[in-house]
This record gives sequence, C-alpha cells and structure tokens, in this order.
Amino acid sequence: MQHFSQPFTQLFDLKNGLSDKGETTNRYLSNMKGMYADQGAYEEAIAHDNPLVYEFYELKLPEHPGELLFGTSIVYPGKVGNEYYMTKGHFHSILETGEVYYCLSGEGYLLLENPEGEWSAERFTPGAAVYVPPRYAHRSINTGNEPLVTFFVFRADAGHEYGLIEQQGFRKLIVEENGASSIIDNPKWIE
Amino acid sequence: MQHFSQPFTQLFDLKNGLSDKGETTNRYLSNMKGMYADQGAYEEAIAHDNPLVYEFYELKLPEHPGELLFGTSIVYPGKVGNEYYMTKGHFHSILETGEVYYCLSGEGYLLLENPEGEWSAERFTPGAAVYVPPRYAHRSINTGNEPLVTFFVFRADAGHEYGLIEQQGFRKLIVEENGASSIIDNPKWIE
Repeated sequence: MQHFSQPFTQLFDLKNGLSDKGETTNRYLSNMKGMYADQGAYEEAIAHDNPLVYEFYELKLPEHPGELLFGTSIVYPGKVGNEYYMTKGHFHSILETGEVYYCLSGEGYLLLENPEGEWSAERFTPGAAVYVPPRYAHRSINTGNEPLVTFFVFRADAGHEYGLIEQQGFRKLIVEENGASSIIDNPKWIE
Repeated sequence: MQHFSQPFTQLFDLKNGLSDKGETTNRYLSNMKGMYADQGAYEEAIAHDNPLVYEFYELKLPEHPGELLFGTSIVYPGKVGNEYYMTKGHFHSILETGEVYYCLSGEGYLLLENPEGEWSAERFTPGAAVYVPPRYAHRSINTGNEPLVTFFVFRADAGHEYGLIEQQGFRKLIVEENGASSIIDNPKWIE
C-alpha cells in the first residue's frame, strides 16, 4: 500500500505567522535580482543593505496527489523604487492544480495570470481567502506598512515552476503612485 | 480544454468565521439523531429544544482534482450528556485525499481514524493547523465555552462519505469527566 502521512499539528501564530516548528526559507533582496522593473533603484538599494523581503514555511510530505502542503508566507513592507516588496511568484509544475491563500494580517494583493493572458489582482485584507484556480501563476505583494501574513494550502505533488516569471515577470506590476497602490503594465513583458 | 474556476476572493471573519457571501449549511441537534452515545440524554435534550450544533460554508467549484474547496466550520459549545458538541464527521469519497484545518478561535479536537484502526485526537487551539492525511475520517469537537472556528481546505473532487460513521460513530468519544475533556472508547463501536 502507498505510504501516506500520519496526522499531525503545527502551530502558526494568527498575527505574525511564525511557527514553533521548522525553519523558514528566506528570500533576501539579493535573491530578487532582475525581478523589479527599476533596475537602477534595485542596484542602489542592494549597495546599501540586503533586507529580508519574505519568508515562508515548507513542509516535506509525500508527493502524492491526495496529500496537501500548507504553511504561512510573510512578506515584509518595503519598496524598490516605487514597486512594492513581493514574492518571486510561481506556476505549479503540475499546471492544472490550484492553491488557497487565507490572509491573517497585513494588506496587499495576490497577482494572478494564466498562460492564456487572463489576469487578476485579488485584494488581501485580514480574513480574505483568495482562490488560485488551476493554471494561474501567483505572487503576493505587500502594499501596506506591516508584514503581510497568509496561510496557504496546495497539493503536495504540485511543485513550483519559476522559469518564465524570473525572466520577464508578470504582465502587471503593482506600484505606488501618489501615495496609493496602482496596477500598471510591466514594461519588460513580451507577448 | 477543461473548464476551470476563475480567481475570486471570499471574506471569512478571523474571529467568528462568518462570511459576507453564501449561506451556511446548518446542523441542528435534530440532525444528529443516533450519533451521541447517551441516547437518553439526547432524547431529553431534543424534547426541550433544537439548538444549532454546527454550521459550515460550502463552495460549488468544478469537481476536478486540481481544484480546491475551502470555507469555515463553526461548532457551537454544548454537550449531550457528557459528550461534547461535534460534527457528524466524514471520510472522503475519494478515500486517498487529505484535508487541512486551521483553527481561528475556540478550542477542541479533531478526532481522526482510518479503516486500519489507527486514530488520533489532534488539539485545536487558535493558530493550530491540523493535517488530515489521506484515508482518515475526521470530526471536529468543541470542548470549550465559545464557538470552535476552523478554516478548511480539501480537493474539490474528494466528496463526503458519512455511511459507516453515522451508524456506529468513531472508535473514540471525547467526553467531559471531572470538569476536563477525556478520550474514551466508544461503547457502540464494533470491530
């Protein structure tokens, strides 16, 4: 018989997202090279400091389509030029699998797009459950002044695919304009 | 091409679990006939009143293995005899699919068992993420004095199977003994 997981519990603080178990994967500004539209602002920022942009918990469970992975993601507040701190974003390697993000604290967006060019920017506020349907790449963006904390769940065999997004990003950017967040076209994006 | 969902957001209050969208499915005490060990206490309780025992949100999404369903479940505080208010509990129709419960408020247990006779009682406290592996039936039990609120996620094609559990229940009961919760054998359970 297939070997499945056993029942278990992991605590994630409802406010700051931190857990008593496991280590987070950390993404510093140096890990985000080429991902912000304003390359000059990025070079200037990284010359001064290398702050933590986001961190997340990763479980290790059998990569079976009946198992689910879950954890929290914490995106810190900040900007590179006028573009807000964000995650790299990813498709799933098994493209036709979805994901759920439940926002625990902070504010921002989940930016989504599929290979057919459909996109959406779903608003994260505390208590917002955002659904990522199958086929949609997704990136968390913190437009506020405190950490953006979300609890996520996806199929354990889904996998992460960063390739295309690391090269040219998403079709849209979320930037600060006149003190408010604004969704604009990504100048680096090529059809 | 397969028709998948579009991105969307649904708000669920982080404290009381209630949503701005959709109606809950309600389970009153009258819907729980035969599910409590103390049948006399049940008959006496139902003669006086028919309180709401629990409620939950149900999404309607395509029943595809890449889609996920999510929502909140709210189990109210109370007892029938010395047995705490609980959900009916279910296996998934596709037995080899798991589920995740993230506790938002209240306290209690998720009681789990698989057809092989392995069982576990995982503790719900605010911030506890409880993992239901594939093959495990699961039931939420409120051992506290306020509503037990959880956010759940499972595969959209998993389905619910109540049959065996409605007849003889789980192998274990969670009851109040000397003012504290206690896990005991279910006298109705037959191997």
